[in-house]
Amino acid sequence: MAVVAKWMCDRDNSMFDSKKDADAYDKMLELAEQFTELLQRQIPEVDEVKAEEFGIFLAKNKEAIISACKGKTEALAELHEGGDSNVHSLAAEG
Amino acid sequence: MAVVAKWMCDRDNSMFDSKKDADAYDKMLELAEQFTELLQRQIPEVDEVKAEEFGIFLAKNKEAIISACKGKTEALAELHEGGDSNVHSLAAEG
Repeated sequence: MAVVAKWMCDRDNSMFDSKKDADAYDKMLELAEQFTELLQRQIPEVDEVKAEEFGIFLAKNKEAIISACKGKTEALAELHEGGDSNVHSLAAEG
Repeated sequence: MAVVAKWMCDRDNSMFDSKKDADAYDKMLELAEQFTELLQRQIPEVDEVKAEEFGIFLAKNKEAIISACKGKTEALAELHEGGDSNVHSLAAEG
Protein backbone atom coordinates (compact mmCIF):
# COMPACT_ATOMS: atom_id res chain seq x y z
CA MET A 1 0.00 0.00 0.00
CA ALA A 2 1.13 3.50 -0.74
CA VAL A 3 -0.13 6.99 -0.39
CA VAL A 4 0.18 9.04 -3.58
CA ALA A 5 -0.06 12.78 -3.85
CA LYS A 6 -2.69 14.05 -6.26
CA TRP A 7 -3.64 17.57 -7.17
CA MET A 8 -7.17 18.68 -7.79
CA CYS A 9 -8.26 21.76 -9.69
CA ASP A 10 -11.25 22.94 -7.67
CA ARG A 11 -12.83 24.69 -10.65
CA ASP A 12 -14.07 21.37 -11.99
CA ASN A 13 -12.51 18.78 -9.67
CA SER A 14 -10.08 17.53 -12.33
CA MET A 15 -7.27 15.46 -10.83
CA PHE A 16 -3.58 15.67 -11.71
CA ASP A 17 -0.43 13.82 -10.72
CA SER A 18 1.69 16.96 -10.59
CA LYS A 19 1.06 20.38 -9.13
CA LYS A 20 2.54 21.91 -12.25
CA ASP A 21 -0.05 20.26 -14.50
CA ALA A 22 -2.86 21.15 -12.11
CA ASP A 23 -1.73 24.77 -12.01
CA ALA A 24 -1.54 24.95 -15.81
CA TYR A 25 -5.03 23.49 -16.10
CA ASP A 26 -6.40 25.89 -13.50
CA LYS A 27 -4.84 28.82 -15.33
CA MET A 28 -6.31 27.61 -18.63
CA LEU A 29 -9.79 27.42 -17.10
CA GLU A 30 -9.37 30.87 -15.56
CA LEU A 31 -8.53 32.33 -18.98
CA ALA A 32 -11.38 30.37 -20.57
CA GLU A 33 -13.80 31.83 -18.04
CA GLN A 34 -12.69 35.36 -18.91
CA PHE A 35 -13.11 34.75 -22.63
CA THR A 36 -16.53 33.23 -22.04
CA GLU A 37 -17.65 36.19 -19.95
CA LEU A 38 -16.34 38.60 -22.56
CA LEU A 39 -18.36 36.84 -25.26
CA GLN A 40 -21.46 36.80 -23.05
CA ARG A 41 -21.12 40.51 -22.34
CA GLN A 42 -20.83 41.30 -26.06
CA ILE A 43 -23.43 38.79 -27.25
CA PRO A 44 -25.74 38.23 -24.25
CA GLU A 45 -28.09 35.88 -26.11
CA VAL A 46 -25.32 33.40 -26.98
CA ASP A 47 -25.91 29.83 -25.80
CA GLU A 48 -24.25 29.46 -22.39
CA VAL A 49 -22.74 26.03 -22.98
CA LYS A 50 -21.37 27.03 -26.36
CA ALA A 51 -19.94 30.22 -24.90
CA GLU A 52 -18.14 28.11 -22.29
CA GLU A 53 -16.79 25.78 -24.96
CA PHE A 54 -15.64 28.75 -27.02
CA GLY A 55 -13.82 30.19 -24.02
CA ILE A 56 -12.08 26.87 -23.41
CA PHE A 57 -11.21 26.61 -27.09
CA LEU A 58 -9.59 30.05 -27.06
CA ALA A 59 -7.77 29.38 -23.79
CA LYS A 60 -6.39 26.07 -25.04
CA ASN A 61 -5.16 27.83 -28.17
CA LYS A 62 -3.76 30.91 -26.47
CA GLU A 63 -0.40 30.60 -28.21
CA ALA A 64 -2.10 30.90 -31.60
CA ILE A 65 -4.09 33.86 -30.32
CA ILE A 66 -0.95 35.62 -29.13
CA SER A 67 0.68 34.99 -32.53
CA ALA A 68 -2.38 36.36 -34.34
CA CYS A 69 -2.53 39.45 -32.13
CA LYS A 70 1.13 40.05 -32.87
CA GLY A 71 0.52 40.07 -36.61
CA LYS A 72 0.49 36.42 -37.67
CA THR A 73 -3.27 36.41 -38.22
CA GLU A 74 -3.17 33.16 -40.19
CA ALA A 75 -2.48 31.40 -36.87
CA LEU A 76 -6.21 31.62 -36.14
CA ALA A 77 -7.22 30.32 -39.56
CA GLU A 78 -5.15 27.20 -38.93
CA LEU A 79 -6.96 26.39 -35.70
CA HIS A 80 -10.06 24.75 -37.14
CA GLU A 81 -8.09 22.22 -39.13
CA GLY A 82 -6.07 20.70 -36.34
CA GLY A 83 -9.02 21.13 -34.02
CA ASP A 84 -9.05 20.29 -30.34
CA SER A 85 -10.42 16.85 -29.64
CA ASN A 86 -11.20 17.64 -26.04
CA VAL A 87 -13.26 20.69 -26.90
CA HIS A 88 -14.98 18.83 -29.70
CA SER A 89 -16.10 16.08 -27.39
CA LEU A 90 -17.45 18.61 -24.90
CA ALA A 91 -19.26 20.31 -27.77
CA ALA A 92 -20.97 17.12 -28.90
CA GLU A 93 -24.11 17.66 -26.83
CA GLY A 94 -24.73 21.13 -28.25
CA MET B 1 -5.51 74.29 -54.87
CA ALA B 2 -3.52 71.34 -53.68
CA VAL B 3 -3.41 67.63 -54.13
CA VAL B 4 -3.31 65.72 -50.87
CA ALA B 5 -2.36 62.09 -50.45
CA LYS B 6 -4.95 59.92 -48.76
CA TRP B 7 -4.85 56.26 -47.94
CA MET B 8 -7.83 54.00 -48.23
CA CYS B 9 -8.27 50.65 -46.54
CA ASP B 10 -10.03 48.61 -49.23
CA ARG B 11 -11.65 46.28 -46.70
CA ASP B 12 -14.26 48.91 -45.90
CA ASN B 13 -13.10 51.99 -47.85
CA SER B 14 -12.06 53.87 -44.69
CA MET B 15 -9.84 56.86 -45.49
CA PHE B 16 -6.69 57.86 -43.65
CA ASP B 17 -4.22 60.72 -43.86
CA SER B 18 -1.21 58.52 -43.26
CA LYS B 19 -0.21 55.16 -44.66
CA LYS B 20 0.80 54.09 -41.16
CA ASP B 21 -2.70 54.63 -39.78
CA ALA B 22 -4.28 52.95 -42.79
CA ASP B 23 -1.99 49.94 -42.40
CA ALA B 24 -2.79 49.66 -38.70
CA TYR B 25 -6.50 49.83 -39.42
CA ASP B 26 -6.21 47.23 -42.18
CA LYS B 27 -4.29 44.93 -39.85
CA MET B 28 -6.91 45.40 -37.14
CA LEU B 29 -9.71 44.46 -39.55
CA GLU B 30 -7.72 41.44 -40.75
CA LEU B 31 -7.38 40.19 -37.17
CA ALA B 32 -11.05 40.98 -36.51
CA GLU B 33 -12.05 38.91 -39.51
CA GLN B 34 -10.07 35.93 -38.20
CA PHE B 35 -11.65 36.19 -34.76
CA THR B 36 -15.11 36.47 -36.33
CA GLU B 37 -14.54 33.41 -38.50
CA LEU B 38 -13.24 31.47 -35.52
CA LEU B 39 -16.38 32.31 -33.54
CA GLN B 40 -18.59 31.38 -36.49
CA ARG B 41 -16.83 28.05 -36.91
CA GLN B 42 -17.29 27.24 -33.23
CA ILE B 43 -20.81 28.65 -32.89
CA PRO B 44 -22.29 28.53 -36.42
CA GLU B 45 -25.69 29.86 -35.38
CA VAL B 46 -24.29 33.08 -33.91
CA ASP B 47 -25.71 36.29 -35.38
CA GLU B 48 -23.43 37.35 -38.25
CA VAL B 49 -23.40 41.07 -37.44
CA LYS B 50 -22.73 40.42 -33.77
CA ALA B 51 -19.97 37.98 -34.63
CA GLU B 52 -18.37 40.70 -36.76
CA GLU B 53 -18.66 43.22 -33.94
CA PHE B 54 -17.17 40.73 -31.50
CA GLY B 55 -14.23 40.15 -33.85
CA ILE B 56 -13.62 43.89 -34.11
CA PHE B 57 -13.92 44.26 -30.35
CA LEU B 58 -11.29 41.57 -29.79
CA ALA B 59 -8.99 42.99 -32.47
CA LYS B 60 -9.22 46.51 -31.06
CA ASN B 61 -8.35 45.14 -27.64
CA LYS B 62 -5.59 42.80 -28.75
CA GLU B 63 -3.14 44.17 -26.19
CA ALA B 64 -5.48 43.13 -23.36
CA ILE B 65 -5.91 39.73 -24.99
CA ILE B 66 -2.16 39.22 -25.20
CA SER B 67 -1.83 40.20 -21.54
CA ALA B 68 -4.58 37.78 -20.54
CA CYS B 69 -3.07 34.94 -22.55
CA LYS B 70 0.25 35.59 -20.83
CA GLY B 71 -1.31 35.18 -17.39
CA LYS B 72 -2.88 38.55 -16.56
CA THR B 73 -6.42 37.24 -17.04
CA GLU B 74 -7.96 40.24 -15.29
CA ALA B 75 -7.05 42.29 -18.37
CA LEU B 76 -10.13 40.83 -20.06
CA ALA B 77 -12.40 41.54 -17.12
CA GLU B 78 -11.45 45.20 -17.31
CA LEU B 79 -12.49 45.51 -20.93
CA HIS B 80 -16.24 45.91 -20.46
CA GLU B 81 -15.89 48.88 -18.13
CA GLY B 82 -13.83 51.15 -20.34
CA GLY B 83 -15.72 49.84 -23.35
CA ASP B 84 -15.05 50.80 -26.93
CA SER B 85 -17.31 53.57 -28.15
CA ASN B 86 -16.78 52.72 -31.79
CA VAL B 87 -17.81 49.11 -31.33
CA HIS B 88 -20.73 50.13 -29.16
CA SER B 89 -22.09 52.46 -31.79
CA LEU B 90 -21.83 49.73 -34.43
CA ALA B 91 -23.62 47.38 -32.08
CA ALA B 92 -26.56 49.72 -31.54
CA GLU B 93 -28.66 48.27 -34.37
CA GLY B 94 -28.45 44.70 -33.06
